[in-house]
Amino acid sequence: MSGIEEQPADVERYLEELAQHGRHPGGGWFRPVYSPDWQAAQRQILDWFDRIGLESRVDAVGTVYGRLAGSEGGDCIVTGSHFDTVLHGGKFDGAAGVVAAMAAVHTLKERFGAPRRTLEVVGLCEEEGSRYHANMWGSRAITGRLFPDDFERLVDSDGVRIGDAMRAVGLDPDRIGEAQRDDVAAFLELHVEQGHILQAEGIQIGVVDVVTGITTLKVTLRGRSDHAGTTPMTMRRDSFLGAAAMTLALTDVALELGRPAVLTVGSIAVKPNVRNIVAGETVFLIDARHSVPARKEELVSRAIAICQEIGARRDLEVEIEQLTDKTPAPMDSDLVRVLEDSAAACGYSYQRMVSGAGHDAQTFSYRFPAVMLFVPSKDGRSHSPLEYTSLEDLTRGVSVLATALHQLAY
Amino acid sequence: MSGIEEQPADVERYLEELAQHGRHPGGGWFRPVYSPDWQAAQRQILDWFDRIGLESRVDAVGTVYGRLAGSEGGDCIVTGSHFDTVLHGGKFDGAAGVVAAMAAVHTLKERFGAPRRTLEVVGLCEEEGSRYHANMWGSRAITGRLFPDDFERLVDSDGVRIGDAMRAVGLDPDRIGEAQRDDVAAFLELHVEQGHILQAEGIQIGVVDVVTGITTLKVTLRGRSDHAGTTPMTMRRDSFLGAAAMTLALTDVALELGRPAVLTVGSIAVKPNVRNIVAGETVFLIDARHSVPARKEELVSRAIAICQEIGARRDLEVEIEQLTDKTPAPMDSDLVRVLEDSAAACGYSYQRMVSGAGHDAQTFSYRFPAVMLFVPSKDGRSHSPLEYTSLEDLTRGVSVLATALHQLAY
Repeated sequence: MSGIEEQPADVERYLEELAQHGRHPGGGWFRPVYSPDWQAAQRQILDWFDRIGLESRVDAVGTVYGRLAGSEGGDCIVTGSHFDTVLHGGKFDGAAGVVAAMAAVHTLKERFGAPRRTLEVVGLCEEEGSRYHANMWGSRAITGRLFPDDFERLVDSDGVRIGDAMRAVGLDPDRIGEAQRDDVAAFLELHVEQGHILQAEGIQIGVVDVVTGITTLKVTLRGRSDHAGTTPMTMRRDSFLGAAAMTLALTDVALELGRPAVLTVGSIAVKPNVRNIVAGETVFLIDARHSVPARKEELVSRAIAICQEIGARRDLEVEIEQLTDKTPAPMDSDLVRVLEDSAAACGYSYQRMVSGAGHDAQTFSYRFPAVMLFVPSKDGRSHSPLEYTSLEDLTRGVSVLATALHQLAY
Repeated sequence: MSGIEEQPADVERYLEELAQHGRHPGGGWFRPVYSPDWQAAQRQILDWFDRIGLESRVDAVGTVYGRLAGSEGGDCIVTGSHFDTVLHGGKFDGAAGVVAAMAAVHTLKERFGAPRRTLEVVGLCEEEGSRYHANMWGSRAITGRLFPDDFERLVDSDGVRIGDAMRAVGLDPDRIGEAQRDDVAAFLELHVEQGHILQAEGIQIGVVDVVTGITTLKVTLRGRSDHAGTTPMTMRRDSFLGAAAMTLALTDVALELGRPAVLTVGSIAVKPNVRNIVAGETVFLIDARHSVPARKEELVSRAIAICQEIGARRDLEVEIEQLTDKTPAPMDSDLVRVLEDSAAACGYSYQRMVSGAGHDAQTFSYRFPAVMLFVPSKDGRSHSPLEYTSLEDLTRGVSVLATALHQLAY
């Protein structure tokens, strides 16, 4: 197996063409699903398919495919990512995976012609949940994981229902079932890491072997609102002090379990939130993640025990509600090895790693063999105009992807 | 010296009459300064003055006086409190002091006739800062402590300037200087404790010997907003974790210094305040109080050192701004003794204590001899419809006040 070396200039051209669409006057990009900027990006990708001679189609939710038919027929090797963005998002999140898929398949077609197995580039319509809380609308439609109440539930901030937004761009919500597929042999997604690990450790390629599991807990602490001047320290039931003590103890558990355990308290609401009144009620969210199911359970059960113990000690009522629970999603072990072999063949440093964020590959993995590869994110910035991956780093990722696709499809 | 025993029925009648005005449909009371409900309460107090034959007047900011002229003339013994309330306030905060002054002077007039020194009941127009941040508008006008920019600065939430609100109730803002006095020999204010101490310790009367000093600090912590899934615990600069650690350490200092040190973090804002993003910035307010100047300085300087030390350890930028600084206000020692003697003469349990909250007596104390007495607050509730002091407790306070006024004025 030998590495297929991509040209930075080819990768850059695709990247810059897609970045034409959805520049936001307030900074960064914004391509919310079914918006005019999203439509422009969709047309751009379809243009690419025409330009290099891939057979294009748009599915029932607006996901676009570019097909390079294989001589043997059968199930497809699919590669790509999403082309929507968050508000004030960066140039790479999602886009890098679409661009990489285009550049890789372009190179393979030029150098090797028709493959043995059918290759498809996919631009997934929606992953970010930035207009509708539709998160992974594209990959959920493909894998048959839409919820019965999605059409009722999904309304944007202007009150537009997702079904009406679809009609406005020529899609028929009644045909959404047609997006589902059963002919995917493998899904490969290149994505920017959105974290610090590759940069900090000087590694060029991350091969994701598991997408982490996430449990979200909502903790409500009820103490007593007291006057900050007239209530001695020993007579208080200060809910914010409880939240502070819990947060420190909770993060210590994640530190103790070690990577890839992470636990974050990023959302806190204090009532009445006034300088001179002891906080009677504090609500905070816990985001706890681990890639190993048993370790995730340990992290969560210790978190719950800590909240209850500290609450009891501080005479606070503690209410804990589990908001979400996603089990870890292992990537396909054969595909992981193909990516590792491809990185090695290209001569790049690589390591297996956990994806700490959710991705379309996770949704695909529930139904099809799937895998991801990461390229470094400068300073871990993401969901920000500061998001950056150097052209060299991105091109290395495209080379590994092309090498893997060649291995799988030719 | 013998105690003057008040009748609960007399106290209750005044209390209920004042409570007719400003019931709020959302619960509790609301008599913001210069509102129709505030005007009704003002008229009520003026009616009382007429009813028992006190010479009434309204000063330039709307404070009302009821005068019982003394045979010797000279400076006045003034007693009372404010008659405005916070939104959803209780029946006793401020009102108790006005009612107590009325009931006490009523009793003294009936039993002893004209005093030697002039006695005045005062209903102060504003203390709470609930419509305008005019805090202690009445006592500040009396003591010449209005700020040059008050008329510019003070605008309510409907955009009405305080000068226009005054004109609407027949007051002339240009004459505000006329409210200032130089003929106050003593100011005595009965107030509900608004804290837990008297109830917890089973004491009937609190004699305030000092109103605590308050320093307010605004602490801004800047770390880095990171993805909660992709950023290992050891690579984070989590501003909320810093705030949590600081809050725990800061309150430990107040606990260590012991009563009457209090330190509260009751107002916290986290950015971006999203579940799955490490908090890049956290701003919180510190409210630190002590009645002894040197101890207050120690509390504040240790608080600042703790924030800087923890910030440095956690790689956070720390910015500390002092918002306010009020030095402790000692009450007049002669008047403190008069109140203690009066409580003893009435046969009630009493103790000296610190007022942890600011009061009009504090403003008076900058210019005149002043003192306060506290009656118990059930469960420390205040600024709430749940605020409660039993009629027996309040009547004991009125008896002590009447005894002290008799001692001073007859």
